[in-house]
Amino acid sequence: MAGRLYGVGVGPGDPDLLTLKAIRCVEAADVIAYPVKAPGEKGTALEIVMQRADLSQKETVELIFGMNADDKARKSDYGRAVAALSAILDGGKSVAVITLGDVSLYSTYMRLNADMEARGYKTAVIPGVASFCSGAAEARMPLTIGEEGLAVVSMNGDPEEIRAAVESFDNIVLMKAGGHMGEVVKLLGDAGLKEKATIVSNIGMDGQYVGPVDEERQYGYFTTVIVKKGE
Amino acid sequence: MAGRLYGVGVGPGDPDLLTLKAIRCVEAADVIAYPVKAPGEKGTALEIVMQRADLSQKETVELIFGMNADDKARKSDYGRAVAALSAILDGGKSVAVITLGDVSLYSTYMRLNADMEARGYKTAVIPGVASFCSGAAEARMPLTIGEEGLAVVSMNGDPEEIRAAVESFDNIVLMKAGGHMGEVVKLLGDAGLKEKATIVSNIGMDGQYVGPVDEERQYGYFTTVIVKKGE
Repeated sequence: MAGRLYGVGVGPGDPDLLTLKAIRCVEAADVIAYPVKAPGEKGTALEIVMQRADLSQKETVELIFGMNADDKARKSDYGRAVAALSAILDGGKSVAVITLGDVSLYSTYMRLNADMEARGYKTAVIPGVASFCSGAAEARMPLTIGEEGLAVVSMNGDPEEIRAAVESFDNIVLMKAGGHMGEVVKLLGDAGLKEKATIVSNIGMDGQYVGPVDEERQYGYFTTVIVKKGE
Repeated sequence: MAGRLYGVGVGPGDPDLLTLKAIRCVEAADVIAYPVKAPGEKGTALEIVMQRADLSQKETVELIFGMNADDKARKSDYGRAVAALSAILDGGKSVAVITLGDVSLYSTYMRLNADMEARGYKTAVIPGVASFCSGAAEARMPLTIGEEGLAVVSMNGDPEEIRAAVESFDNIVLMKAGGHMGEVVKLLGDAGLKEKATIVSNIGMDGQYVGPVDEERQYGYFTTVIVKKGE
């Protein structure tokens, strides 16, 4: 009988934000698979899990997702991940694929999950603490109060759609803002919202910053901007 | 010296979705405060925490938030909560206020946090797994893939704003949908999106349902609708 595939959200970085369920799933799985950008990397998700789960006797497998702009290279990475997971599951072993933050938000895992289900494998998904929830907690700031709405957009997305979301919502989370701070500052300036934005960057890592927009600063990869039009 | 106030997200219902940090905070706090709709209720957040943390020696305090439409009654509930927490903190004790799901999303706690900070108390917020992340995990469905955006709206909110969000976003989460299923069905029907919606209702409780829109069904209080325009 084929093993079961688990997608496990490990939270935003602080190992104490792992859930009991994530730890148990990882400890019970035969194999831990973890995403890396290049072969031999440790991977942020694995570093988080290793701090609270005993993986000493555990088989681990890296899944290489090269963040390559080239569509062909990405498809080939993806195909190799499907093949690697299928081989392990066909051998009757269970696999936990660990992923940063929550699994349903901007994780390649959910694509894998759908494909593996279509191939007949049984799967389960274990949610995690989303990075923007952790960012709001660090800033001690609500994302939504009462009956307000929230827009979550990626700064790699379509600029017109981002602009429309910023105009029409009371609360906006700009994800993947690290490499786009020039555009963020322009966007907020145009909308008259620069004073309404809070930057949450590299929480629990080198270069942590929670505060107002500071154009002189360099921001790390894990940067989220929370915009609140209310008080 | 005054004690510290903690806002602690306990996740969507499954006690195994508590984080290590939430459990430690609750076990270390001198007093646990928990929201109820009426005096003497146990409160969902407390029932979750009691299954994984030892509260036997712990002082507990209920905070009554009557879900009253009357503004005056709500303000009076709120004022009593502020007074109760202040009295405990002034006595040098720490208090953990536990709240369902994540703290930053639709929780009265964040209002309390801001007011208590304004009164000079030190506070901290511990994020939790958001109910809609858990719903997406149960449905084994991504909320966002690639560079997509996500709109989160409350069905108690402004109907025009809800409609605009449904029209303009690829992915929409309709929160607090339990008492509004007639409006949800109309909204999705008008937008031609009824086949694109997944209902996630009462996960881990009586009447659990994950599946397509079924107009014949009765849905519980904890009902979220996930709409995805993509495949």
